[in-house]
Amino acid sequence: MNSFQLYNPTRLLFGKGTVSQLGEHVKPYGKRILLVYGGGSIKRSGLYDEVIAQLNGIGAEVFELPGVEPNPRLATVHKGIERCRREKVDFILAVGGGSVIDAAKAIAAGVPYEGDVWDFCVRKAVIQEALPLGTVLTLAATGSEMNGNAVISDWEKKLKRGMGSKLIYPKFSILDPQLTFTVPRDQTVNGIVDMMSYVFEQYFSLTTDTPLQERFAESILQTVIENGELALKDGTNYAARANLMLCGTYALNGTLPIGVETDWATHAIEHEVSAIYDIAHGAGLAIIFPNWMKYVYKERVDRFVQYAVRVWNVDPRGKSDDEVALAGIEATRAYFTRIGAPATLGQLGIGGEMLDRMAEEAVRFGPIGNFKKLEKDDVRTILEMCL
Amino acid sequence: MNSFQLYNPTRLLFGKGTVSQLGEHVKPYGKRILLVYGGGSIKRSGLYDEVIAQLNGIGAEVFELPGVEPNPRLATVHKGIERCRREKVDFILAVGGGSVIDAAKAIAAGVPYEGDVWDFCVRKAVIQEALPLGTVLTLAATGSEMNGNAVISDWEKKLKRGMGSKLIYPKFSILDPQLTFTVPRDQTVNGIVDMMSYVFEQYFSLTTDTPLQERFAESILQTVIENGELALKDGTNYAARANLMLCGTYALNGTLPIGVETDWATHAIEHEVSAIYDIAHGAGLAIIFPNWMKYVYKERVDRFVQYAVRVWNVDPRGKSDDEVALAGIEATRAYFTRIGAPATLGQLGIGGEMLDRMAEEAVRFGPIGNFKKLEKDDVRTILEMCL
Repeated sequence: MNSFQLYNPTRLLFGKGTVSQLGEHVKPYGKRILLVYGGGSIKRSGLYDEVIAQLNGIGAEVFELPGVEPNPRLATVHKGIERCRREKVDFILAVGGGSVIDAAKAIAAGVPYEGDVWDFCVRKAVIQEALPLGTVLTLAATGSEMNGNAVISDWEKKLKRGMGSKLIYPKFSILDPQLTFTVPRDQTVNGIVDMMSYVFEQYFSLTTDTPLQERFAESILQTVIENGELALKDGTNYAARANLMLCGTYALNGTLPIGVETDWATHAIEHEVSAIYDIAHGAGLAIIFPNWMKYVYKERVDRFVQYAVRVWNVDPRGKSDDEVALAGIEATRAYFTRIGAPATLGQLGIGGEMLDRMAEEAVRFGPIGNFKKLEKDDVRTILEMCL
Repeated sequence: MNSFQLYNPTRLLFGKGTVSQLGEHVKPYGKRILLVYGGGSIKRSGLYDEVIAQLNGIGAEVFELPGVEPNPRLATVHKGIERCRREKVDFILAVGGGSVIDAAKAIAAGVPYEGDVWDFCVRKAVIQEALPLGTVLTLAATGSEMNGNAVISDWEKKLKRGMGSKLIYPKFSILDPQLTFTVPRDQTVNGIVDMMSYVFEQYFSLTTDTPLQERFAESILQTVIENGELALKDGTNYAARANLMLCGTYALNGTLPIGVETDWATHAIEHEVSAIYDIAHGAGLAIIFPNWMKYVYKERVDRFVQYAVRVWNVDPRGKSDDEVALAGIEATRAYFTRIGAPATLGQLGIGGEMLDRMAEEAVRFGPIGNFKKLEKDDVRTILEMCL
């Protein structure tokens, strides 16, 4: 186990009807609120009205930034920053999924910064200050509700980049599993793949002597696997939705990477794919992850054997380590297929034309990943396996 | 799963040599420091000198409260409160195990309170304000380094009571596993039992649909079981000490009870025993817990079956649920005995004279526990099983 620092100041308000606590938790931060959201789903579901009623209840003045895209765009973030400055906003409230929350975080960091917020994504500047923000989560997937990371896309340059800071953790996040009852099937599937992928990035590590972190990761994977299928069978199964929501948060709230060297190569590769093709993050990950696994598993077969046995109940008797490891990887692919996630880029109509550009971009800061350091050729090979 | 709120603002600094970060983390809180510690072990180990050097490095003035007892006493807390008031202390630094940290928390809460700090223990008052505190942990056991609870004893009245508040979470806790290399065998044993007992209180619950919380609990138990024996074999095994230390923190940092109705009857019973006989908390728990399990397991056999199978690898084939459950309980007792924890009160020279008084005191606010509500007679029976 490596040395580490753990700090997560986000307050989680989890359960049925917790939106009714929104007003009291916004109140300490001020009365000029930027409400950030995506498409019209929160209006159709009635959540928008509930949120507005809560904010009215504390006498707040609400400014709106609707229309945040999946893979939120820099142009939208710029719009939000400008709005906050013009209206002297005190607090940003994100109501939606990971994209909406990420946009809100980027806005929060951008408002007090003199340069372009994109600087934080290309390591030209470090976040020194940010507006406070809170969230009401409507989609279990990205863990953004309880961490200090945000990913945004410069659509003109076809670039997708992340920023991170202790200053952009939400002050609070409201998680009512009922708000995810109406999440469409494909988004539920993407969320499941997202969560599992976040865990993979932190679980497949060369760091040794981390039994607790490994078991926590396996706990999340097993719980997602079981409850993902239950939620897909019946979207209004409260227990399944609640368990998924909690797994989504724990997959990326800083519990798993403590003392562990994490990987993140697959996410870097997927970012390049979805920057060009605007596919859902989860769909891209479902395609790439099992191929990454096959490409790298020999770096540490024992971890992949442990994964196969503990997470997928692969019976190791009479099998070589390689066979057990590969059975675990196959089980992963089979699960993704069973829940309806794509297995190849071809299924999404993506051919091999841009492989070179994507591989090139993925390694622009040097080799990616830690479980196995991937050079451009490695990335290209993995992408070819995905076709 | 029930609704819940999760909030834990303690910053954890974990790993080799992290004491070197002490100065910078104390600095923001002021320069008049009360240093709270126990016996002379931190002087013998050199940790005291290191801490003083760090505090000198930021120009701090240090006042000392040495001699905090295991089962820290109200009189000691009073002394600390008086010292803080007299010297206008800004920040309290606890260097030690759970008892030292608990004393520091009680002092932190007591300083700005006009009445007696004991009021917080008997629910006569609620903590409204507290001095900030930090910790350097030297013993993996109680989780006090990352929560808002403290237990103190009124030695004259032979009462042991707890207080809790969001305001007495440590601002930071420094966890260097090397500091536990010299922990004597019996204290390591007590720490192992402590951690496992904390998990039991949160794991044996009637709440359903909490698969992630259950698996997290099982993860901690399995990791403690493995690494406890390794640390006892070689006290300087860094990985084992580090894993135990991390388990101690996670056993009681608020991760396990989210959305779960917890029990805590066994701790309430143990408090009565150690208030009278001043035995180590861990020793008392090792004696009582397996007996509590035997007394209550029929309330929910499935949870005890799951415990036996997942934590102790009991093979359920050909066994009734009761047999599997009892095998898990026996495995618990056998493990405690294997590591050298006591199995009966008799082994500690305690007879049946005070059973009635202890049972009476345990239920003074009404029945205890949630897995099975225990009345005075139930507590007496469990204590008799412990003789």
